[in-house]
Amino acid sequence: MIIAVSMLNPEAQDWWCKELSRLMPEDTIVPRDGIENPESVDYALVWRPATGWIASLPNLRAVISCAAGVDHIFADSALPADMPVIRTIGDDLTQRMKEYVLLHVLRHHRRMPDICAAQRNREWNQIVTPVASERTVAILGLGNLGATAAGAVSAIGFRTLGWSRSLKRIGGVECHAGEEGLRAVIGAADIVVNLLPLTDETRGLIDAAFLAAMKPGASFINAGRGGHVVEADLLAALDAGQLSHATLDVFETEPLPDDSPFWSHPSVTVTPHIASMIDPMTGARIVARNIREHRDTGRSPFEVSAERGY
Amino acid sequence: MIIAVSMLNPEAQDWWCKELSRLMPEDTIVPRDGIENPESVDYALVWRPATGWIASLPNLRAVISCAAGVDHIFADSALPADMPVIRTIGDDLTQRMKEYVLLHVLRHHRRMPDICAAQRNREWNQIVTPVASERTVAILGLGNLGATAAGAVSAIGFRTLGWSRSLKRIGGVECHAGEEGLRAVIGAADIVVNLLPLTDETRGLIDAAFLAAMKPGASFINAGRGGHVVEADLLAALDAGQLSHATLDVFETEPLPDDSPFWSHPSVTVTPHIASMIDPMTGARIVARNIREHRDTGRSPFEVSAERGY
Repeated sequence: MIIAVSMLNPEAQDWWCKELSRLMPEDTIVPRDGIENPESVDYALVWRPATGWIASLPNLRAVISCAAGVDHIFADSALPADMPVIRTIGDDLTQRMKEYVLLHVLRHHRRMPDICAAQRNREWNQIVTPVASERTVAILGLGNLGATAAGAVSAIGFRTLGWSRSLKRIGGVECHAGEEGLRAVIGAADIVVNLLPLTDETRGLIDAAFLAAMKPGASFINAGRGGHVVEADLLAALDAGQLSHATLDVFETEPLPDDSPFWSHPSVTVTPHIASMIDPMTGARIVARNIREHRDTGRSPFEVSAERGY
Repeated sequence: MIIAVSMLNPEAQDWWCKELSRLMPEDTIVPRDGIENPESVDYALVWRPATGWIASLPNLRAVISCAAGVDHIFADSALPADMPVIRTIGDDLTQRMKEYVLLHVLRHHRRMPDICAAQRNREWNQIVTPVASERTVAILGLGNLGATAAGAVSAIGFRTLGWSRSLKRIGGVECHAGEEGLRAVIGAADIVVNLLPLTDETRGLIDAAFLAAMKPGASFINAGRGGHVVEADLLAALDAGQLSHATLDVFETEPLPDDSPFWSHPSVTVTPHIASMIDPMTGARIVARNIREHRDTGRSPFEVSAERGY
């Protein structure tokens, strides 16, 4: 087989080519610029492929995203409509997202940003917080990552609400769906965690109306995509005190520009898109396995629905 | 009954007197300075009682600590040898300690202090961390709080070691005991959490020799007592890089003095003795219940062994 690799970052592209060559010695791995015959390419592993590049490979059997997100592939307006798109998920990614959500829910719950600020001022300020059972956490998006995170938040003792497009059932989580369900969930939660996929339906969902419907003083954690949030509206809600804190892992533009007001906002924690960053070694093993499975069976359990976008 | 209240903080003392009067309307609650006849006092609720004050109440049936720790009572050199000492614990305190330990273990694991420092410098630094299963966490002290915390750390996916004076059995936790066991546990852990009781045996346990026996670059969380740590030795280990970070909730002197080097040390997180601060409302209900139980039965399941000191 011939597998082409196209990444935004040249170092990452080199690394993936070398690692896949090591893991798939019987196959030929070529970087984007090293393709001799476009008709010969069987699979493409990508991160933010250039518009039209996938369409330039006429015999491609599938496109593989090197991460769980696939919005960067569907953003290609020239993507052939019937092209199978496979995402890379594994226990590892689910575990990492669970850790991130637990860490940041607990960090908001126990008011660590305020405690760290007090330390900088040498203030012994014994902030009393309620116990977890007196806090309500909402998880938006109950796919693989969201369902696991919601279960873990509930297991620690938080009252946990979940919201997804179609109604799910998760032990310990009060699940809701639909427009009405969303309003109920965000109006009741002290901490709202976004783990939705980015689709035409969810783009810009977290806007002024959404933020105004949240419980006053609630906080927000975004480990979904930057495109879910209208950033100016979020800043306004933080400045007005409608939101007490936001922890943001994803942004409209990444890396976050140097002049972004998020960097220095006293009520914002910035994490650099690391919530569930794939460990490259683990990721490469999963990619190799998924390509082989697709080659042998013509299908992949990790194939994404082009219609839904996730 | 007459119940005397002696707290270090006059506001706290007032609050406890009012709240206990409300919860125990049939009894008389008096502050330390309002005792008319020392012979009439049946119970004393205390935080850091003055030396000899307990001994000045000849008919006292028991002393109640308003918190889980009782070292502040045994520190009274004039404490009558046979005086029953009752501590205040509840599901609430156990839950709060579990939250604190999970939060700070995850915070060290995911290197949040480094990520917050990067934010202050507007640096998009995608630090890659291993998954929890590749980290080893050690919990020292497996009493009520420690055993629950260790189980919760294990449930998230960390390899979890436990150490206590006498060998315990806890699902998902590799338990050790004794001098040899301690060396094995602290030598293997990436994150060491102290939840030991403060006794003659454990005072000053965390000294230069202990810190040198830890894995190089490991981190330390102290939610036990300040007296467990030789603070100068801890600072030296942090400065030498033997320890990568310390999160400290308790100190030799509290509130932490303004000139303490811990406040501004780049590798230290200070939290103001809030790991498992009792919510006063919940605490008062538990204290009232424990006093009534001792009055009715002459015993309390929360009575502490004077010999062990916990």
